[in-house]
Amino acid sequence: MAHHDFTPDCYYNNIGWHDPVLEIAPGDTVSTTTVDARGWDQNGEQAATRGNPMTGPFYIAGAEEGDTFVVHFDKLWPNRDWGWTGHQIAPNVLDPGFDPGFTRVDEPLRWPIDLEAGTATQPDTLPGLVLPLRPMVGCFGIAPPRGQAISTATSSTHGGNMDYNGFVEGVTVYLPVEAPGALFHLGDGHAVQGDGEIVGTGIEISFDVTFSVDLIKGKRIGWPRGENDTHIFVAGNARPLDQCVEHASSELVRWLEADYGLSSQTAHALLGQCVEYDMGNVFDPAYTMVCKVAKSLLGQLGAERAG
Amino acid sequence: MAHHDFTPDCYYNNIGWHDPVLEIAPGDTVSTTTVDARGWDQNGEQAATRGNPMTGPFYIAGAEEGDTFVVHFDKLWPNRDWGWTGHQIAPNVLDPGFDPGFTRVDEPLRWPIDLEAGTATQPDTLPGLVLPLRPMVGCFGIAPPRGQAISTATSSTHGGNMDYNGFVEGVTVYLPVEAPGALFHLGDGHAVQGDGEIVGTGIEISFDVTFSVDLIKGKRIGWPRGENDTHIFVAGNARPLDQCVEHASSELVRWLEADYGLSSQTAHALLGQCVEYDMGNVFDPAYTMVCKVAKSLLGQLGAERAG
Amino acid sequence: MAHHDFTPDCYYNNIGWHDPVLEIAPGDTVSTTTVDARGWDQNGEQAATRGNPMTGPFYIAGAEEGDTFVVHFDKLWPNRDWGWTGHQIAPNVLDPGFDPGFTRVDEPLRWPIDLEAGTATQPDTLPGLVLPLRPMVGCFGIAPPRGQAISTATSSTHGGNMDYNGFVEGVTVYLPVEAPGALFHLGDGHAVQGDGEIVGTGIEISFDVTFSVDLIKGKRIGWPRGENDTHIFVAGNARPLDQCVEHASSELVRWLEADYGLSSQTAHALLGQCVEYDMGNVFDPAYTMVCKVAKSLLGQLGAERAG
Amino acid sequence: MAHHDFTPDCYYNNIGWHDPVLEIAPGDTVSTTTVDARGWDQNGEQAATRGNPMTGPFYIAGAEEGDTFVVHFDKLWPNRDWGWTGHQIAPNVLDPGFDPGFTRVDEPLRWPIDLEAGTATQPDTLPGLVLPLRPMVGCFGIAPPRGQAISTATSSTHGGNMDYNGFVEGVTVYLPVEAPGALFHLGDGHAVQGDGEIVGTGIEISFDVTFSVDLIKGKRIGWPRGENDTHIFVAGNARPLDQCVEHASSELVRWLEADYGLSSQTAHALLGQCVEYDMGNVFDPAYTMVCKVAKSLLGQLGAERAG
Repeated sequence: MAHHDFTPDCYYNNIGWHDPVLEIAPGDTVSTTTVDARGWDQNGEQAATRGNPMTGPFYIAGAEEGDTFVVHFDKLWPNRDWGWTGHQIAPNVLDPGFDPGFTRVDEPLRWPIDLEAGTATQPDTLPGLVLPLRPMVGCFGIAPPRGQAISTATSSTHGGNMDYNGFVEGVTVYLPVEAPGALFHLGDGHAVQGDGEIVGTGIEISFDVTFSVDLIKGKRIGWPRGENDTHIFVAGNARPLDQCVEHASSELVRWLEADYGLSSQTAHALLGQCVEYDMGNVFDPAYTMVCKVAKSLLGQLGAERAG
Repeated sequence: MAHHDFTPDCYYNNIGWHDPVLEIAPGDTVSTTTVDARGWDQNGEQAATRGNPMTGPFYIAGAEEGDTFVVHFDKLWPNRDWGWTGHQIAPNVLDPGFDPGFTRVDEPLRWPIDLEAGTATQPDTLPGLVLPLRPMVGCFGIAPPRGQAISTATSSTHGGNMDYNGFVEGVTVYLPVEAPGALFHLGDGHAVQGDGEIVGTGIEISFDVTFSVDLIKGKRIGWPRGENDTHIFVAGNARPLDQCVEHASSELVRWLEADYGLSSQTAHALLGQCVEYDMGNVFDPAYTMVCKVAKSLLGQLGAERAG
Repeated sequence: MAHHDFTPDCYYNNIGWHDPVLEIAPGDTVSTTTVDARGWDQNGEQAATRGNPMTGPFYIAGAEEGDTFVVHFDKLWPNRDWGWTGHQIAPNVLDPGFDPGFTRVDEPLRWPIDLEAGTATQPDTLPGLVLPLRPMVGCFGIAPPRGQAISTATSSTHGGNMDYNGFVEGVTVYLPVEAPGALFHLGDGHAVQGDGEIVGTGIEISFDVTFSVDLIKGKRIGWPRGENDTHIFVAGNARPLDQCVEHASSELVRWLEADYGLSSQTAHALLGQCVEYDMGNVFDPAYTMVCKVAKSLLGQLGAERAG
Repeated sequence: MAHHDFTPDCYYNNIGWHDPVLEIAPGDTVSTTTVDARGWDQNGEQAATRGNPMTGPFYIAGAEEGDTFVVHFDKLWPNRDWGWTGHQIAPNVLDPGFDPGFTRVDEPLRWPIDLEAGTATQPDTLPGLVLPLRPMVGCFGIAPPRGQAISTATSSTHGGNMDYNGFVEGVTVYLPVEAPGALFHLGDGHAVQGDGEIVGTGIEISFDVTFSVDLIKGKRIGWPRGENDTHIFVAGNARPLDQCVEHASSELVRWLEADYGLSSQTAHALLGQCVEYDMGNVFDPAYTMVCKVAKSLLGQLGAERAG
């Protein structure tokens, strides 16, 4: 149950079977930092190559293929007083040929962040608007199967660039281990993000992060699972969104049956009238849809999680 | 501003340019009933042909192509003490080839409804679970363009079988008028429905309904728009879900620009960090995705709706 | 086995349960004309409302729900010396945001047609290019289920605007009867069309048409089936293309099993190594994909069609 | 212009920035072998790990990011007298919930191959059927961008598991270089394959292969391009098929404009009436659609390729 302070000095733009930067044990906690999606750090310096550079990977002692890696986000908070966003809704989110009515700008839009008040503003474009911060990690994951190294632009079963605004402080995530040590990477912090990440960014910013890890030995899962105070959920990552729905829904059914002991009939009937879906992103090469169910309903059914 | 009590005696299984059952005026209110998706009425009698039979159409005096039809759901409440659902998550919602582990049953699953307590239960499959009623209309719409008559199994720009659980009491909906009199149809009440209608049904039940209509002359919209106390929203109906997102997002941008006076830059930047998406259905021939934004944020921007 | 000469004087822009223009019998042949997609006839006059106006519907005596309607295209040939096309590949066929590099023109591009030589040219844009005519009907079908009237912009199980360049002279098509008399409509002739109809048009032109009809009593099919000298095929109409593939492939499997007597194992193994797919359209609200297999291979297997 | 004989002794199950097995120069030819998709070699021995193991990578001297790698398939021919296929059309190719009517078999179906006659048969399931061999490589490609290593189950801009039955002897393919030396991998030979690879396999078999490589310095392309005697073509790899169409069509337009000197108007008009699409695969995580145009038509337009 050690606590590690880790200062990164190298970053990967893909999630893969890389040499670890630190070895930790199940139960350990790590405090570290992440740079933003363009590689700018807490001082606004270019510390890494553009394109969701990752802090890590962290090697979890004892993790091996067929286990489940567990990470809890203890703290996610911006460590500088400005972030940036895209200007324009991505063309794939609008009708083909829809004319946005203004020219694409490459220079990002800068948002002042008040870390004390916990708010973001964009006085030029959105005068009067004050958004409460809801910091989340856009991209994190562990080494994917078959020795792959997958770009941090996209996502799959290993996690990756899911850009789901529900990955906030207090959430626990479960991922399927494929490589020895699991090899956990994270980065791409957003101070705020709308559903779908439709301008291609949240409010991109560097973070102070504290996370804790754990391991469930010999438990194989198929897709990123998570939980917060109120819900258990699964993220499905693919295209089109329909396929995200298929992956996430199937995995939630499997979870309810295998770990909560629900019969198939009960799992289907429950989800039929009580399932909820959140949209992660509709911008990245793989989209993300989240399928979830309230813990309170499982409680009413007397279903408790084993394993 | 007349009030009409209307007792239906014929039902259509498509939404089209049919002879109206009642002529009403903008500002009028109608109290009527709807049968359930299989055509069973408040007494459980087969009153109409299976497949979302519609009450109506109602002819709105003065409505013509190029206007916007407005309907407000004043009251939506079940009028009998049981509903029914499907048993099984639809195969298109799960991974191809996913084995549900139990045989498909045609006989629907019966849910006792306590109208006084406002709750639904299914003691056999879901012992202990008590769901608060959240009555909604699964299918409603007005005559589609080009003289079409479109099955109540599906949906498009005219509304139809959107199966969005946000179409509840208190909501106002806007639809593009194509036929003289607009020709409003409604039915397919659900006492409760999960996101996506993934078992192919909500808790299907007959309703007592009261609705009020209005007309915005000379205003042309593209897709069903709506509002409730907290949000304005657009429903996009198509396949795959990606295309629903495109339709709904484009229409919301148009709405913000044309009626709220937002510049393109402001509309894009606002939605980028503040948009929300709800899933209507992923079961019907056309899926439904809802794109929405909080009225409070528009208020912060000082944007008020004109027209 | 009567022959009818029919001169149309009304046209529908949807395919539905309309009053027939002529009653014919199974075995009969009809010679008639069709106007082009904008309603321009053999003299270039506006004879009908723009948007794939249909000649018909023709009532086939004895046809009723649960039968299969059969049509053979005896002759399809342009009856004027010019056609027209769109200028620009549709934005949904290109990457989102792809800039075509020239401004959209509404005025169609005019193509001289040499009816004697059987060729089409477009000397301004495509100097030197001479395309052999391959006349096909873009849109045809019979009344859809549930009393629907479906726009001739789109397609479904009833046929409709499939825009498949394999629907040429000599082809026989099978469609599922839903309405009394089947109610056959046709129009939207193309002198030439590329795969996918990616500029939104073929070379649009008015036609002289001769077709023969037949009926298979009590035989229920699911999707448009067809055959030519070399292949049997099925058209699947939906979005995305993946769903077209699913519909067309499933129907071809059913066809091979039910009518050619192939075992499931044989049907799957045959299609696995021998299936062919053609793209109909990727422009209309519903796309079209055709799944086909060579008759010669069925011959090698000794499979003969019953029914 | 050296000729190399290369005998592989290691195989990768992903395409990435691996240490090369052989360095060759532009203009060189290599004769080598590939094992089948399950890693079985010419003797039926397990020589590599299951899942499209690749021969290579080959390092092309002088290749660097921003160049175009060129490979010509001089010879593709099976080197043993049997291949194998799947039994069942994949569930994602059929309607959701479609019951194939027979139980999934893991043991592959064995097809005798007559190398002299150049034919394949499957006497048990397909008695009487004799298929001419049409050998093709299912999976080949070069190192992808951003240091990625991408599973040979899937495909993208770098090539990969496209399973397009047009990648036969005599074809030349162009791929975008991302890594020093390009790093060419190939394998997954099919003696025969239907469109779409709908049973998840062609007739899988080990190959004798001869290929020649070349380099176009400083030329950047976006997607795999190819040509044979009659056509130039582009492969788009993604999901759904619609997105494959978008990628492939956009790249073909760019190719025609940049290298053949066609104006945008001419490129759009030509493809509108003359484009052809072939389906690669609808089985793998990324599907493949090929967009092509006949060289003879380019000849009629007087368009010659520069660069």
